[in-house]
Amino acid sequence: MSKVKDCLKELKFDDKGLIPVVIQEVETNEVLMLAYMNETSLSATLETGRTHFWSRSRGKLWKKGEVSGCEQIVHEIFVDCDEDSLLIKVHQKGGACHTGYKSCFYRKINVKQDMIEIVSRKVFHPHEKYGKKEKQEENLTG
Amino acid sequence: MSKVKDCLKELKFDDKGLIPVVIQEVETNEVLMLAYMNETSLSATLETGRTHFWSRSRGKLWKKGEVSGCEQIVHEIFVDCDEDSLLIKVHQKGGACHTGYKSCFYRKINVKQDMIEIVSRKVFHPHEKYGKKEKQEENLTG
Repeated sequence: MSKVKDCLKELKFDDKGLIPVVIQEVETNEVLMLAYMNETSLSATLETGRTHFWSRSRGKLWKKGEVSGCEQIVHEIFVDCDEDSLLIKVHQKGGACHTGYKSCFYRKINVKQDMIEIVSRKVFHPHEKYGKKEKQEENLTG
Repeated sequence: MSKVKDCLKELKFDDKGLIPVVIQEVETNEVLMLAYMNETSLSATLETGRTHFWSRSRGKLWKKGEVSGCEQIVHEIFVDCDEDSLLIKVHQKGGACHTGYKSCFYRKINVKQDMIEIVSRKVFHPHEKYGKKEKQEENLTG
């Protein structure tokens, strides 16, 4: 068996068959989102070079950007020490977040000033990508 | 109620009372680890300015670096669009990984060459921090 297959065989999917995946933009090192893969979506990601996840809200395989066009081209994949999470560096087309922000982590909790600050930039208008029913049509991380 | 408390009240902890937290080094933007917090460890993190997690393997509150000294000083906290994951930028003392590597994501899956590459640097020797029983004494992400 190949070394990569050996490594992937060791991955610890949780009791729902999922593993959390941190998505980071390769050009900026900005963390864009955290989503979940099952074995099928990980295989689809490896085969196509585009991220695929398991949508927990819709209960189905989900190619990132399948509606919005905001797909993620896989650059590098890393596995953690416990083999229970992955980090994938990607080239992000458009924005990662269904809200139109570049990153899903667009809100900073400012404890000292008791403020929630918007710190990411909007790169598209959700209604242009998803129409009015964006939340029904597309997973929350679109 | 304060704006920060309002925001924290909206956080969606999973059916085990946990929320995944991505830890990123503020100086380098390197992703160091993914761990889990419950409400108690999030409160301890906010109060002390040092990351605390819930150790799933040991079933207890765990201050990062309590044994190794490799603590994480909180710089910024971000919440994602779905309010079901956090990103915390930290100043990392020593290394984040119990294996001695700077990052827990020290292995790159090189599919094309069928190789697993070590891509992070070792910043300490585990036996110097934990002694011989490091895995019993300290959580896997120590």
